[in-house]
Amino acid sequence: MINQLYNTSLSLLTDLYQLTMAYGYWKAGKAEQEAVFNLYFRKHPFQGGFTIACGLSSVIDYLNDYRFSDDDLAYVGSIAGNDGEKLFEQGFLDYLKNMTFACSIDAIPEGTAVFPNEPLLRIQGPILQCQLLETPLLNLINFQSLIATKAARMRLVAKDDSLLEFGLRRAQGPDGGVTASRAAYVGGFDATSNVIAGKLYDIPVKGTHAHSWVMSFDSELESFETYAQYMPNNVTLLVDTYDSLNGVRHAIKTGNRLRERGYDLSGIRLDSGDLAYLSIEARKLLDDAGFEKTNIVASNDLDEHIMDSLKIQGAKINVWGIGTKLVTAFDQPALGGVYKLAAIRLQSGDWDYKLKLSEQAIKVSTPGIQQVRRFKDAKGFLSDMIFNIEMPLTGKSTMVDPYDFTRNRSFSEQSTFEDLLVPIFDKGLLVYSLPSVHDTRSRVQEQLLNFHKGIKRFVNPHTYPVGLEKGLFDLKTNLILKLRAANES
Amino acid sequence: MINQLYNTSLSLLTDLYQLTMAYGYWKAGKAEQEAVFNLYFRKHPFQGGFTIACGLSSVIDYLNDYRFSDDDLAYVGSIAGNDGEKLFEQGFLDYLKNMTFACSIDAIPEGTAVFPNEPLLRIQGPILQCQLLETPLLNLINFQSLIATKAARMRLVAKDDSLLEFGLRRAQGPDGGVTASRAAYVGGFDATSNVIAGKLYDIPVKGTHAHSWVMSFDSELESFETYAQYMPNNVTLLVDTYDSLNGVRHAIKTGNRLRERGYDLSGIRLDSGDLAYLSIEARKLLDDAGFEKTNIVASNDLDEHIMDSLKIQGAKINVWGIGTKLVTAFDQPALGGVYKLAAIRLQSGDWDYKLKLSEQAIKVSTPGIQQVRRFKDAKGFLSDMIFNIEMPLTGKSTMVDPYDFTRNRSFSEQSTFEDLLVPIFDKGLLVYSLPSVHDTRSRVQEQLLNFHKGIKRFVNPHTYPVGLEKGLFDLKTNLILKLRAANES
Repeated sequence: MINQLYNTSLSLLTDLYQLTMAYGYWKAGKAEQEAVFNLYFRKHPFQGGFTIACGLSSVIDYLNDYRFSDDDLAYVGSIAGNDGEKLFEQGFLDYLKNMTFACSIDAIPEGTAVFPNEPLLRIQGPILQCQLLETPLLNLINFQSLIATKAARMRLVAKDDSLLEFGLRRAQGPDGGVTASRAAYVGGFDATSNVIAGKLYDIPVKGTHAHSWVMSFDSELESFETYAQYMPNNVTLLVDTYDSLNGVRHAIKTGNRLRERGYDLSGIRLDSGDLAYLSIEARKLLDDAGFEKTNIVASNDLDEHIMDSLKIQGAKINVWGIGTKLVTAFDQPALGGVYKLAAIRLQSGDWDYKLKLSEQAIKVSTPGIQQVRRFKDAKGFLSDMIFNIEMPLTGKSTMVDPYDFTRNRSFSEQSTFEDLLVPIFDKGLLVYSLPSVHDTRSRVQEQLLNFHKGIKRFVNPHTYPVGLEKGLFDLKTNLILKLRAANES
Repeated sequence: MINQLYNTSLSLLTDLYQLTMAYGYWKAGKAEQEAVFNLYFRKHPFQGGFTIACGLSSVIDYLNDYRFSDDDLAYVGSIAGNDGEKLFEQGFLDYLKNMTFACSIDAIPEGTAVFPNEPLLRIQGPILQCQLLETPLLNLINFQSLIATKAARMRLVAKDDSLLEFGLRRAQGPDGGVTASRAAYVGGFDATSNVIAGKLYDIPVKGTHAHSWVMSFDSELESFETYAQYMPNNVTLLVDTYDSLNGVRHAIKTGNRLRERGYDLSGIRLDSGDLAYLSIEARKLLDDAGFEKTNIVASNDLDEHIMDSLKIQGAKINVWGIGTKLVTAFDQPALGGVYKLAAIRLQSGDWDYKLKLSEQAIKVSTPGIQQVRRFKDAKGFLSDMIFNIEMPLTGKSTMVDPYDFTRNRSFSEQSTFEDLLVPIFDKGLLVYSLPSVHDTRSRVQEQLLNFHKGIKRFVNPHTYPVGLEKGLFDLKTNLILKLRAANES
């Protein structure tokens, strides 16, 4: 879908330092040394208790056409250093030109609820290629996971109400809007106002009219009647151009005329004022006039917290139109995903495990060729254990809390589990069959049903247990101690 | 540049309600009635005192190829209403197919400092076309103006330091990153890490290496030496993989070797820890070793406030790498630009002026075919007056504070001024020659020099005076009174 949208090779959608490092690896004869990187985040967005993985479909699109065009390479060849001399020599440009994508990628499917430190993607292959992919993979996964998560939070509040995404005009650029529309649908929205997103992603589109429609007529009633006359099967009337409750009365008049023609008033929309009060009064007016099934749509800078508050106040809103706060993830507009080297293959064939030190424990990365095992029982998911697939698990599994080694949890050999990462690319070849966006959307709701409700609350959510398998925990600890010792010497 | 990036017609980059309204106008025989819309915002972002207009170049690209493809129309034709019947009839699809862009657009050039309620764009033409353009024009202008403004604020703090944009990995999608890179450059950044933005927009690109480079070697010193060996004209070494000040010592060793080869150590980069302390200590180490000219680059979740604080603490940073907080405009990730109908041409040829009422005065729109006159004297800009070009100004101009009619300001006929909006499209024909991105970038700094420093401070900035010309103020007031009266009756 990314490639449907763009007409240029996107291999340069990366940071220059990925290219300068690639050059260094190539010059040092290390370009094809096998490496493993993990893409993960350290903290849920929105102070929440879960995150929805999203963006893999864009990653697949991106990698399915991964190549450096002549045009790209001419540009790269033109970049100069601080002495005005070119940074890259021709042999390197030729290498990029002839390079074919050869990485293996395992990933957690879109729509899965995921947790800090779990690899959403594991990339294994020539270190030069892994490095070049850092930036685009982060860009695609960070944003879409952020929006899918925001949408899923709104769905939790909305329960069975309809959720419409209206964000394109305030989104961060065209595909800030277009990919947000898809991610919002995955997260649980019912439809979008964004027509191109509807076309590209097979998402339902919705829309009726704006204030300008009403203003362009001599009276509100005339504008409603005209609209209903020409589009009788799509009549949701925006009632707040002049006075919301007067507007509802005009909508009822139009509704009566629609019924005479065999249609009905689908909804009225409130876009300003006290939405709790106005929706309650509008519901009374509509019900008294026999329009019990007419929807009340509300919009105007809504987010999950305002929705929650409106529900507590008894607002009679059953369709929510949400724009800016959703598509920009307004209260936290970036997910801080990172991409860390976890192992390099030595000439002996053994893995040299790697981690990034930090003064902050949360920022120390985890080494290993990681997989996530999600244990479950009949009632739902119990906990996730990150393990190194190169260290076979036998018998009982013990996982350790990475931030408090005194906390352990064990699972017997008979435990039920699912390993979350599945093969996507095998040495450059796509081996994954992408589910439809509708199935991905269903997966989100199935996933959330399987977690304790504590992780789904907004204030101080419960922390779902994620541990490191004991062998991996020990590997990490020993590596930290070795690196700290080397640094002190 | 938008069209350079995308390979699909973008006419569907709009909300469905624009199409349903367009259909209504077409059915009602009003499709080609002449209308005027203004695109403006109501409040500066970031609680600041100015906003930088940006995005016009993308608007021009967008409109230069404005057409509905057969594919687009097939999709639009497939959209159904709540009874399963199609929303749009074939005649309307044919109308869209044969439609050619015929609007006139006047706009304030990119890089101009602008203020609430000033029309950044004025769109005049067939109401159907004006309406379809609402969403894409808002999308393009809102986001780019937001980022250019954020960047300009960072430039104010940075003074003569270098500013590098590093945001692609956390940006809101690919063009969330790519257009942010351009807008950041316009706002005053010196370079970006984003290679495709460098290629598309002729912006300088910068980058050296990441932690993974260091981790992939057996020692930090080996990684530095290897990097410097192969790319001696671009050596900025990231020193915090293990221990920042030890890293500086290793960088100095590498710098000495570089000098033996006739090159120099361009910089060291700090990416974690106490940047004030570490930069001061790093400066001492570098200076003591004779590397007085080596740059100290800092990164790690910086924004203008943290930069300010670091400067107050005496941090010895002279190159700032800024990512997430810039490209997502983290503390306010959307500019609330709106697009309001301001006049419709009657059959008599006269204008029927329009405004949108609201209970909040700030949300009442202004009617008229608006232009902005910026008065100035030898010391700089004095105030901006919004006027209706259909109401000729003669002699003395009087402007009224729109929120306090007792506050007036007059300018004699001899006053010096500039009218900000310039013709971009004349009835669909491009009549504007777009300045280079470099000239646009210079314009921002020239503009800001001409304003009182009070509007540039971050806390409680001075409000630059923007008024409505007395005739327009009276027109607006009378229209409000008329509409309120009509609503009470």
